[in-house]
Amino acid sequence: MRLASFDDGRVGVVQDGHVHEVAGFGPARAGEHSAARRLITTHPHLRSAAELELGDPVPLRDVALLPPVPDPSKVFGAPVNYVDHQREMDEAVQVSGLGLFLKAPSSLVGSGGEVRLPYTDRRFDQEGEVAVVIGRRARHVTTAEALDHVFGYTALLDMTMRGREDRSTRKSFETFTPLGPWIVTLDEIGNVDDLDFSCRVGEELRQKASTASLIWGFAELVAYASSITTLEPGDVITSGTPAGVGPVGPGDTIRVDVAGLGGELTVRVTADGAVACPTGRH
Amino acid sequence: MRLASFDDGRVGVVQDGHVHEVAGFGPARAGEHSAARRLITTHPHLRSAAELELGDPVPLRDVALLPPVPDPSKVFGAPVNYVDHQREMDEAVQVSGLGLFLKAPSSLVGSGGEVRLPYTDRRFDQEGEVAVVIGRRARHVTTAEALDHVFGYTALLDMTMRGREDRSTRKSFETFTPLGPWIVTLDEIGNVDDLDFSCRVGEELRQKASTASLIWGFAELVAYASSITTLEPGDVITSGTPAGVGPVGPGDTIRVDVAGLGGELTVRVTADGAVACPTGRH
Repeated sequence: MRLASFDDGRVGVVQDGHVHEVAGFGPARAGEHSAARRLITTHPHLRSAAELELGDPVPLRDVALLPPVPDPSKVFGAPVNYVDHQREMDEAVQVSGLGLFLKAPSSLVGSGGEVRLPYTDRRFDQEGEVAVVIGRRARHVTTAEALDHVFGYTALLDMTMRGREDRSTRKSFETFTPLGPWIVTLDEIGNVDDLDFSCRVGEELRQKASTASLIWGFAELVAYASSITTLEPGDVITSGTPAGVGPVGPGDTIRVDVAGLGGELTVRVTADGAVACPTGRH
Repeated sequence: MRLASFDDGRVGVVQDGHVHEVAGFGPARAGEHSAARRLITTHPHLRSAAELELGDPVPLRDVALLPPVPDPSKVFGAPVNYVDHQREMDEAVQVSGLGLFLKAPSSLVGSGGEVRLPYTDRRFDQEGEVAVVIGRRARHVTTAEALDHVFGYTALLDMTMRGREDRSTRKSFETFTPLGPWIVTLDEIGNVDDLDFSCRVGEELRQKASTASLIWGFAELVAYASSITTLEPGDVITSGTPAGVGPVGPGDTIRVDVAGLGGELTVRVTADGAVACPTGRH
């Protein structure tokens, strides 16, 4: 099953180039969680559209995609989780020494949207990744139990400013977490730790890897995150980026293609409204 | 005005040692934001209890306090924002070079609760701080506008594991962000950048400072955070800790006393269920 959020916050099932709105989970009213988060909370093991009441199909090209979960309570990232990326960054320590970092949920943007660079005089890199979305609340789960708490997977771009600021700052600028185009439930694939994916900037293939090369696979990531704190339905855990990170600039189009998704995560880069970094160049 | 969350998620006004539940903002139903977050969203400039419908008074000693906002969308911290703490940590860079970090909202705990140390073989320090809670959504606000987006202030303990993991990990363990005992609206004090506060571990006075010594005051912190991403009603921004950080262990009681709050933030430290750190001692 493929689950998307679109337009004013509706949630729908994607089939054959169309989206079918899920009845009973309308756009969030004031003080409510998003439709997607409410749906995932009540259907953590959703496997078939037959479990839902669906509306008429609308062509995907006629809707604006949102992040498949627009309002997760947390977005966790893994700092150094591919050996080839560790080498290119000259990092002495891997994920087991660095732990996880947090990105602001307000940095999410849907496929088809824009990444807006905030500063004119800093370097910004693309980091293509595969992420999972939590289905069932998880606290102190083992690696054997971990994937049973996962709703599905999707593509994620961990946009990053280089420099010495804390990762949460460098990775949390508004629009710095493109997510989507939609979530695919885990039953659709054989093994989430064996997914080929690629990241292109314009026509250039920058990153090509498989989640089989992850240092910590998804079960380890979810288990470790759940040893820090409680994971809630809709939370996003992204697995880190392989080698091939590089600078992007205004006018670039970035695409992340993950096996089995059936659609690319695509964003355009702009620097509209960018200013000189007020805190220096570092 | 003093606003507290308590028991099963109710929100109330604190007066004379009692809490008066606010009618019309009941505990969150499934898929809803907390009562406090809904109240702050609809009343970002709350100044007088006369604007609310209040229930009968209940003695504070008869309720269990929750974090005054149990479910903020973000908790931002300032890594090095007092010169004396910069010296004790031997840090070359201040907040302007380090930016802000994120703590998981799921690390919050109310006054009277427990801080649970996760590991038996790592060092954990207390960091007493003053925090503000956002009232009105803020994006790219100036320092002159910033405090108009603040609902109020409260005490915060930024519990921290020492080591080389990312700050988000070291500071996001469940119960590592005691907050409260309640929020005081800004109209109750003359100047949020001139508040005396102290932090005690047992009978030992470890930290004693004034927010007048902040490198970035609250207006700068809110303006900078809003230049990164959108701040939502209920978001927490904590201002950093002064000198006097030190280790805590099971059995310790930690108290943060901030001028004008009319009550201390108090927690007990336990190591119940703690294990050897599975990723090493660093």
